[in-house]
Amino acid sequence: QRPREAGIPFGVVLTGPANAITDVPGVRVGHTTLIQGDSIRTGVTAILPHGADLYREKVPAAIHLGNGYGKLAGYSQVQELGELETPIVLTNTLAVATGMNALIMACLRDNPGVGSVNAVVGETNDGFLNDIRGRHVTEADVLRAIETATDGPVAEGNVGAGTGTLCFGWKGGIGTASRKLPESLGGYTVGVLVQTNFGGVLNVAGVPVGPLLGEYYWVDELEGKADGSCMIVVATDAPVLSRNLERIAKRAMLGLARTGGIASNGSGDYVIAFSTAEENRIRPGQQGPRTLSELTNGAVSPLFLATIEATEEAIINSLFAAEDMTGHDGHSREALPVEKVLELLRERGVVK
Amino acid sequence: QRPREAGIPFGVVLTGPANAITDVPGVRVGHTTLIQGDSIRTGVTAILPHGADLYREKVPAAIHLGNGYGKLAGYSQVQELGELETPIVLTNTLAVATGMNALIMACLRDNPGVGSVNAVVGETNDGFLNDIRGRHVTEADVLRAIETATDGPVAEGNVGAGTGTLCFGWKGGIGTASRKLPESLGGYTVGVLVQTNFGGVLNVAGVPVGPLLGEYYWVDELEGKADGSCMIVVATDAPVLSRNLERIAKRAMLGLARTGGIASNGSGDYVIAFSTAEENRIRPGQQGPRTLSELTNGAVSPLFLATIEATEEAIINSLFAAEDMTGHDGHSREALPVEKVLELLRERGVVK
Amino acid sequence: QRPREAGIPFGVVLTGPANAITDVPGVRVGHTTLIQGDSIRTGVTAILPHGADLYREKVPAAIHLGNGYGKLAGYSQVQELGELETPIVLTNTLAVATGMNALIMACLRDNPGVGSVNAVVGETNDGFLNDIRGRHVTEADVLRAIETATDGPVAEGNVGAGTGTLCFGWKGGIGTASRKLPESLGGYTVGVLVQTNFGGVLNVAGVPVGPLLGEYYWVDELEGKADGSCMIVVATDAPVLSRNLERIAKRAMLGLARTGGIASNGSGDYVIAFSTAEENRIRPGQQGPRTLSELTNGAVSPLFLATIEATEEAIINSLFAAEDMTGHDGHSREALPVEKVLELLRERGVVK
Amino acid sequence: QRPREAGIPFGVVLTGPANAITDVPGVRVGHTTLIQGDSIRTGVTAILPHGADLYREKVPAAIHLGNGYGKLAGYSQVQELGELETPIVLTNTLAVATGMNALIMACLRDNPGVGSVNAVVGETNDGFLNDIRGRHVTEADVLRAIETATDGPVAEGNVGAGTGTLCFGWKGGIGTASRKLPESLGGYTVGVLVQTNFGGVLNVAGVPVGPLLGEYYWVDELEGKADGSCMIVVATDAPVLSRNLERIAKRAMLGLARTGGIASNGSGDYVIAFSTAEENRIRPGQQGPRTLSELTNGAVSPLFLATIEATEEAIINSLFAAEDMTGHDGHSREALPVEKVLELLRERGVVK
Repeated sequence: QRPREAGIPFGVVLTGPANAITDVPGVRVGHTTLIQGDSIRTGVTAILPHGADLYREKVPAAIHLGNGYGKLAGYSQVQELGELETPIVLTNTLAVATGMNALIMACLRDNPGVGSVNAVVGETNDGFLNDIRGRHVTEADVLRAIETATDGPVAEGNVGAGTGTLCFGWKGGIGTASRKLPESLGGYTVGVLVQTNFGGVLNVAGVPVGPLLGEYYWVDELEGKADGSCMIVVATDAPVLSRNLERIAKRAMLGLARTGGIASNGSGDYVIAFSTAEENRIRPGQQGPRTLSELTNGAVSPLFLATIEATEEAIINSLFAAEDMTGHDGHSREALPVEKVLELLRERGVVK
Repeated sequence: QRPREAGIPFGVVLTGPANAITDVPGVRVGHTTLIQGDSIRTGVTAILPHGADLYREKVPAAIHLGNGYGKLAGYSQVQELGELETPIVLTNTLAVATGMNALIMACLRDNPGVGSVNAVVGETNDGFLNDIRGRHVTEADVLRAIETATDGPVAEGNVGAGTGTLCFGWKGGIGTASRKLPESLGGYTVGVLVQTNFGGVLNVAGVPVGPLLGEYYWVDELEGKADGSCMIVVATDAPVLSRNLERIAKRAMLGLARTGGIASNGSGDYVIAFSTAEENRIRPGQQGPRTLSELTNGAVSPLFLATIEATEEAIINSLFAAEDMTGHDGHSREALPVEKVLELLRERGVVK
Repeated sequence: QRPREAGIPFGVVLTGPANAITDVPGVRVGHTTLIQGDSIRTGVTAILPHGADLYREKVPAAIHLGNGYGKLAGYSQVQELGELETPIVLTNTLAVATGMNALIMACLRDNPGVGSVNAVVGETNDGFLNDIRGRHVTEADVLRAIETATDGPVAEGNVGAGTGTLCFGWKGGIGTASRKLPESLGGYTVGVLVQTNFGGVLNVAGVPVGPLLGEYYWVDELEGKADGSCMIVVATDAPVLSRNLERIAKRAMLGLARTGGIASNGSGDYVIAFSTAEENRIRPGQQGPRTLSELTNGAVSPLFLATIEATEEAIINSLFAAEDMTGHDGHSREALPVEKVLELLRERGVVK
Repeated sequence: QRPREAGIPFGVVLTGPANAITDVPGVRVGHTTLIQGDSIRTGVTAILPHGADLYREKVPAAIHLGNGYGKLAGYSQVQELGELETPIVLTNTLAVATGMNALIMACLRDNPGVGSVNAVVGETNDGFLNDIRGRHVTEADVLRAIETATDGPVAEGNVGAGTGTLCFGWKGGIGTASRKLPESLGGYTVGVLVQTNFGGVLNVAGVPVGPLLGEYYWVDELEGKADGSCMIVVATDAPVLSRNLERIAKRAMLGLARTGGIASNGSGDYVIAFSTAEENRIRPGQQGPRTLSELTNGAVSPLFLATIEATEEAIINSLFAAEDMTGHDGHSREALPVEKVLELLRERGVVK
């Protein structure tokens, strides 16, 4: 049962049909979940903006550095050219290079003449539950996440790149959510997917669940306790180019803030935003001026609100979907005690 | 009665003694409030990092562009040199040049040989209640705010640069708050002052007061309704230099997010952060390498949380302190209905 | 006689007909030159992207901070929204606020409902020859530069905002140049205008004129000697939006480098770039997605080279056009000894 | 014979003893050169700021994106934290992930508890002469470059990461140079190392060698011809922190401009700058405020000039040292015809 189904409210904008990033038409998500033996608790999540080859049909994109303490690959070229030319791969910190190699290999295989491609790979560090130093993610694992990506509902919790992550002191994971603007504002969809592995003072729909349960950053004043990271991917079918996509990406951090995240020093918080609008695809070999479609600056505010709300909900979704996990070195982490949380929310009148 | 005194909780870090930016030793605040006739509802607020001449004793500083749709003066030099060399002046949008002229004049007067000074002036647009086009702020008004600046408690609400501002559909204004880290984390103070003039979906201590009162950005889906702006000033006595001050400034936007702000397209949201640490003052004419003191990157996370909490509280403080106002063209705006809000918070168990 | 007419070569791309920023169709330039008594040696230069009201017909724009030690007004909004909504005004450091006030006043006058406008004003410090502390530039002076702006040839040297500036140890001033791409590359024009007030080691068409004449930054190893500033305005009729305009702006600094500029600590070096392409104008009140035209990323490289060459030539043009000047406090500065320079260039075979 | 030894002048600041990046005390450079069979023409160059473990003794650092069309790894963390924690590895575009894996493996091996490290790997595309799609660089190749790094003279030309690169239409490669400030300015050394693989209009010591030899970007007006990339590493022993290191890094692009580089659309031009000053090393586990040493902003201008000159000379050094190369698919590229160039410079009186 997802939080919204349990009656938890998240903002004022309606969701898309699946309340998932895949509500943005064409977007696909795939997971490779690696749970093996006592110590391997990691994986890969791939997000594809559309069904065609990304290199031959690039999409406008931007990356916002919420807090740059992380190893995301592909930043500078996305910023310089305003476009994305591979699927987005999320994995663990020490598997970024593996993710790059898989993306490069696939691009070279599918595009014979090409000798350069900008792989975009994000990460968080799952080294508490996973034997991260063992570097168990393979290029095949990455390719499998890409190849099995589908539209429709997205698995959340301990799957893919969220298999071994922690969040606000509990088990984190993958979460997703979406918002759909009313037709009067263009009817555009915004979808968000998160890999949650960060800390702070957990707030669920306005209720300070972290303090109420006695589990939060400040409780024992330990430096570093809030560290971790959050990868956020924002998709939209609205016709927005890189400049406004960067503004949208920046707003996702405001959604993270609503859950109690603080973007602590050690938290690598990155937001990758792209637009799937067909009229703005970038195809190699185009000559002369291209004709583009772009919303006015004034029309992006509803997309900002949609992004904030969907990010908040996606993070809470990841916590509700995650389950207890034991892994590397006998470390274990409990899932958020959902029933207790719902009870707290009922006491406050947040859930009826 | 400030929100905290009414029993509203804001986070987990303790406040300083006055719960104001002036809890940072040396920081002074002054207001010039202009309420004249039917149409003049504006003013000036000045924040001084210390009691000496800023040009001769500059402080490390940074500015974060939360959303750059605004006219703040002084950005590029602060970013390039990492230092602030005038008091910070806040006023209305069309009085930025007046603020600059006042700061320049004062600096030239007090520093005979000087022919260049970087005036830092922020603004929000109070044109709904104030005859902004009449440009009623004078250089003398600006200088008076600087000259009358004092430490101790800070007036909030309809004063100074907050005289004519709006926030979340109600009357906005000036607000302030502070946090003090425990001695085990250095015992540093973070103080925040805000000039609130922005919109979104108001959230008070986690309770969606905007929707509950039927007053929020989305309610009639009008583009631009959330526009406005928020100026945020963050002071600390922690020894942090410009790079970490920029990171601290960035976190203030997370505090704004907790109140329901969305940094809409038309909202000029700027955060100016400075450190008053005496050992890091910059004095013209210094030669050779300077000896500085700086916290490690890992030690700034508590300052991030302090900044987020103080910003959230300062914004809510501005709303609680503001009062009904009628002004230009017969426009009027009500204050937040504090009693209703407290009732909503009591119903939710947020206030006992 | 301009350097090119004297036979000095600048690069490989052809110039436009007037070798001036006004070769970009629609662009106008106006100067107000203030030479009064013993001490007033300053002025204003205005650059208008087209003949209509800028507020009602904004143009895509970007600003690059070559070195942000300066007081340019308008940066953050241009970056956030990617557009310019006033003429560009250049003047002296302490007249920036006056420039803003003039632009604001004119905008309010011409656009009755408007209560906010982003004035773009650049500056360099002419305090050696000019009584800058006397603040002699008036709003009327600024408006006169705007109102008298014309297309066609542009006066260079000791005019407008270049009246009292210094460059490489000699008299600086206003300079301009242009490049026109061949039709096979789109036939676009790039025009540059500079206000030169900076130092370094002067290089004219590859010849180290500074060292050869014994006048350069390093010669007496004095800190600060290279300080000053350079304002660079780049216009083009190519259909490029803010992201690529920022890249173009960045290349202007490479042109400055070719003259021996070093962007010293105290040099406020800013580049403002805009596109006049009619199909990309931004008009208030537009609804829904706009249809835009934009060159591919790959097609901007020729514009980069054009910008670099035009900037180099515009700077040298400013030096050749400037004349000896005596001013404030009896200070005087000689013009570049053009005949000696040409002789050096002839000796080197650079000029036949 | 290096250009300077042939009598070519480069600026006004004296060089260090070896005119190499290794003139900065402690800096080491190692090359792995891969020339195998008909098609493998690639390699690795490693730059080590000092002889200790970088993870345990990090150095202040910054990265400037001259033009972000490239795949450099490690950008965001260096910018966020202002520090470098691995050696810098340069290699070919498709070997970035291999470089990362090697750096990660070495760090994990040498630092048992560590589960996260920010590998900095730069690249240019040598796919014309090298079978880049074959991905022939191994982790062992990377480690060998690091392990064999030494101080003293640095091999230039077709070595290491420069084995298969092209520059201005001729064979490019590795180049290095240095500058030493006079004692009156602190006596600091600036060292630069470049991997040249870019285009433009070659200029040697002010002489337009490209046009004179008929080989330059514009000659046949082909889009993309100037593409390629340039990696630039700047080392200094001056006590400067990340903010001023970023400013220094930015100046290296001005040095590139002096050689005729234009930072074309497809050129990934990155500058990595670090300071070796012992008093500013960052050691994990430090508590409380650190005591640092930093030059005043005003004192960095001489470092700017030193950086510009050393970058210009390093690029020309790479061209003079490179030799004819035949490789992948039978492609071949000639070295710059040094004798002809010297003759042109003699004719112009640049070389006696």
